Amino acid sequence: MKHISKEMQACIDECLRCYQTCLGTAMKHCLETGGEHVEPKHFRLMMACSEICRTAAHFMLLNSPHHKHLCRECAEICTECAKDCERIGDMDDCVQACKSCAASCRAMAS
Amino acid sequence: MKHISKEMQACIDECLRCYQTCLGTAMKHCLETGGEHVEPKHFRLMMACSEICRTAAHFMLLNSPHHKHLCRECAEICTECAKDCERIGDMDDCVQACKSCAASCRAMAS
Amino acid sequence: MKHISKEMQACIDECLRCYQTCLGTAMKHCLETGGEHVEPKHFRLMMACSEICRTAAHFMLLNSPHHKHLCRECAEICTECAKDCERIGDMDDCVQACKSCAASCRAMAS
Amino acid sequence: MKHISKEMQACIDECLRCYQTCLGTAMKHCLETGGEHVEPKHFRLMMACSEICRTAAHFMLLNSPHHKHLCRECAEICTECAKDCERIGDMDDCVQACKSCAASCRAMAS
Repeated sequence: MKHISKEMQACIDECLRCYQTCLGTAMKHCLETGGEHVEPKHFRLMMACSEICRTAAHFMLLNSPHHKHLCRECAEICTECAKDCERIGDMDDCVQACKSCAASCRAMAS
Repeated sequence: MKHISKEMQACIDECLRCYQTCLGTAMKHCLETGGEHVEPKHFRLMMACSEICRTAAHFMLLNSPHHKHLCRECAEICTECAKDCERIGDMDDCVQACKSCAASCRAMAS
Repeated sequence: MKHISKEMQACIDECLRCYQTCLGTAMKHCLETGGEHVEPKHFRLMMACSEICRTAAHFMLLNSPHHKHLCRECAEICTECAKDCERIGDMDDCVQACKSCAASCRAMAS
Repeated sequence: MKHISKEMQACIDECLRCYQTCLGTAMKHCLETGGEHVEPKHFRLMMACSEICRTAAHFMLLNSPHHKHLCRECAEICTECAKDCERIGDMDDCVQACKSCAASCRAMAS
C-alpha cells in the first residue's frame, strides 16, 4: 500500500526520534533543571531542532522532492544542537539522537 | 534524563505511527489511486486523523496535563477514520494503525 | 474560490494571532526575563496554548467537522493561560490575545 | 514586551496568509473540483507549500537564526507553487499569496 524506501523510512524514524528526544528533554529536564539549561540560546536551539526534525519527517511523508532541502537543514541544526548539548553536559540522550539524525539526514540530502 | 512513563511512551509511539501511516497513505496511495480515495469527506478525515495524532503526541511530549483531552479526541477521530478506511477498502495498514492508536489513546485519556 | 464563513475566518485569525503571541513571547520575553517566567508549569502552559491555537486553526482550514472539539479545547487552554499570565504579570499582550481567542473559539465550538 | 522587527512581522504575516490560502484551497477547492486539481504532483506541492510557510513562520517566532534558511526554502517552494497554480488555472488567490510570500521570504533570507 505504501512505497516508502527503507532508507527513507529509516530517516523518518531518526527524525521522529530526535524530535521526541529534543522536545521531551527541553520540556522536562531543561525546564526543571534551570540554570544554563534555560539560557535563551540553548533552549531556542532545542526547540528549533525538534521543529526541523518534525518538519523534515513531514516532507518525506508528503512525498515532496523538497524533502532533500529540509533534510540538509535538519542535519545542520542537529549537528549544532548536539554540540551545544555536549557543552552543557548531562544531555547524553539528546547528543546521541541529534548525531544519529544528522548522519541519516545528511545521507538523505545528498 | 527523561521521565516519560512506559504507558505514555507507548501512546506517543502509537500516535506517531498512525500519523505516519495516515499522512503517507493519503499522499501516495490515495492521491495515486484517485476515485473515492480522493472524495473530500474521506481525504479530509485522513488529514484530520494524521494531524490529531501529531498533536496528541506533541502534548504528551510537552508534558501538559491537557494531553488527556487531546488523546480523547484522537481516539474519536482514529475510530472514525478506521471505519471510513474499511468502507473504502484496500487500506488495511491505515485501519490497523487507527484502531491500535485509538485503543492506546482511549486508555491514556481515562 | 474559498468559502470559509466570516465567523470561521475571524476565529482562524484569532487562533493564529494567539499562537504567534504565546510562542513569540515565550521564546523572547519569558526566556530572556527568566525567574518565574521559566517556571515549568507556566512555560509548558504557554507552549501548550500556542500549539492548541495552531492546531485549532489547522482543523478549521482542513474543513473538518471536528474543528468544534479543537475550538472547545482551545478556549479552555487559552482561558487558563490568560489567568496564569495575569498571575505572573507584565504579559498584557498574552492576556489579551488569550482572552480574545478563547471568546472566539467558545462561540465556534457551540 | 515582544521585539520582533517590522520586517520580520510582515514576513510572518505573509507566511501565515499563504499557509492558510494553500491549505484552505487544497482542502476545499481542489478536493471538490477534482480532476487535475487532485493530480498527485499538484496536490503534494500545495501541501508542501502550506507546510513550509507554517514552519518558516514558526522559526521566526522561535527567534532562531536558522529562520533565514527556512525563508529561503519557503521562497523557492512558493515560487514553484505559484507557477503550478497558474498552469492549472482558476487559483488566483493561491497565485497571489504564493508570489507575495516568496518576495517577502526572499528579502528575509538575504
